Parts: sequence; structure tokens; C-alpha cells
Amino acid sequence: MVVLGIDPGLERIGWGVVERCGSQMKALAFGLVTTPKGPTPERLAMIHAELTGILEKHGPDAVCTEKLFFAKNQTTAIDVAKALGVIQLVISHSGLPCMEFSPPEVKSAIVGNGAAEKKQVQYMVQKLLGLAQPPRPDDVADALAIALTYALRSSAVRGLGQT
Amino acid sequence: MVVLGIDPGLERIGWGVVERCGSQMKALAFGLVTTPKGPTPERLAMIHAELTGILEKHGPDAVCTEKLFFAKNQTTAIDVAKALGVIQLVISHSGLPCMEFSPPEVKSAIVGNGAAEKKQVQYMVQKLLGLAQPPRPDDVADALAIALTYALRSSAVRGLGQT
Repeated sequence: MVVLGIDPGLERIGWGVVERCGSQMKALAFGLVTTPKGPTPERLAMIHAELTGILEKHGPDAVCTEKLFFAKNQTTAIDVAKALGVIQLVISHSGLPCMEFSPPEVKSAIVGNGAAEKKQVQYMVQKLLGLAQPPRPDDVADALAIALTYALRSSAVRGLGQT
Repeated sequence: MVVLGIDPGLERIGWGVVERCGSQMKALAFGLVTTPKGPTPERLAMIHAELTGILEKHGPDAVCTEKLFFAKNQTTAIDVAKALGVIQLVISHSGLPCMEFSPPEVKSAIVGNGAAEKKQVQYMVQKLLGLAQPPRPDDVADALAIALTYALRSSAVRGLGQT
């Protein structure tokens, strides 16, 4: 099973493709999409094009994104939600299953503690995927953690047709 | 000049097409797009399809939307921002100019008072467009007010190539 994880944003979108074979997890590819400052509609069109290309190239079986919770800095939050809307549109057009995980859900799945520190999550992402170094930048590490959350959950719950 | 105004939402999207000939304003068409309860990505795909059809059918020269400001009910706000992201994507793909107006900006343009009541704005929308009745529901009246804001502003500011 191949899972694409996405850390949404308007300026920076982290993405990571994780393959699960039994209990083994492997990072097939990961990267960062960036958009230059300018009119939001044009940046959304760039995200649409880049993400469509990533889906076509890596052909995942499922796609997961971070679930948004707004607290402060609402202007940035609006931009992130606009980008997430475009990301979910691309996923819907692909016909793939789409899941959203909140940061506490990701932390629980990766390190067993919903209030774990970012560094601890990044350390476990590196170990679970057998990477020589922690994935960088944070957006990419977060995207891989989101993909791993889906992979770990579906390996724990058999009989869902998600092997 | 023909302007499409859009009042964004995930469940209800008001839209209205206004034509300006000199100082005369006319409503060419207006309506409401609704999406049934269900997974957000599918609803976003419906909005994408409906709005693409509206743009193709009415061929506006410019498109305007409401500018979002979040205060309370952040879950609803995230959904509205996701929908607005998809709407702005469609506008970007069409190559048309795209403007966002805040509610006070719309009220100022329509009735000259940024703190005017909704009913007063709806009354003026009806009068400016020569409609027999106030447009209903509120989402449609808001969309027409947004389109009128652009039309009134561009009629006041000559020399912008927006005649």
C-alpha cells in the first residue's frame, strides 16, 4: 500500500510518499512545493498543477492531509484553508480515499503520545522509515508523519481492504 | 462590462451576474449553488463543476468574491475558506481578474455606509438593479451586492481599462 501525506499551506506544502509492506515502512519520495508571493488565485493554480503531477507520478492508494484547527493568526489560517480546499479538490478528482488527521492524532500514531514534542515525532519518522537523517524541512517531516499515521493505522486494523 | 459576484460557502454559494452600461446596472442572471451534506472533497468537486459551468455560460469580464474575516465558529470558517480556495482556482484557470471585497467595503459602495444594515443593502441592490422584488435568499442578494461593488467602483474610476 502506498500513501501520500500532505502538510497543507499556501507558501509551503510538504509531501511524502510512504510504502507499507507488512510491518515495514519505506519512504519512496518526498519534497516541498513552494509558491512565490503574489495573487492567491495564481498560487492556488500552481498548487493544483504541482499536486496533480505528484499524484500522477507516484500513483498512491490513499492520500492524507493535516486537519486544520484555527487558533491564532487567522489571516494565515484562511490562506492555508484555501490551499487545503484545492488539495482536497485534486484528491476528489483522482477518486482516491482522502483522510484528515489532527496533529494530536498524528503524534499518537507515531509516538503514542498526543502531546509529544515535534522533535520526538521527527526522530520516530526517521527510525520508522530507516532514513539516514531526519527529514527536512519540518513541512516534509510533517507530511511523512501524516502518511505514516495512515499506514500504521491501516496495518493495525485488518480486514478493511487497505492491505 | 459584465461582472460575476460570488458569496462563498461550502453548503450554499450565492452568485449573480451584473451588467453595467454607462451608469445603468442590470442583473443578467443569479442563483444559488447548494451541496448536500457529505465528504468535503466531493462537495468541493461539485462547487468546481458548477462554478466552471456558470463562468462558461455567462462569460463575465471580471469575478468578485467576498473577502473572509474569521471571528467565531472556526469550523464553519475553515469550510468556507476551502470553498473560496476552489472558487479562486476556477477564476485563476479562467484568466479573469479576481477581486475580494470585505462586507464593509460592499456596504460602503452600495449605500455609502460601511456599517449599514443588511436590509438597507438589499433594498439598494433591488433599486440599483431595477428588480421587482428584493433578491432572495440572502446569499444571492450578497452575491449581487458584491458584483455591484465592482461595477460601481469601476464606473467611478475611469481609465483603468474596465469600461
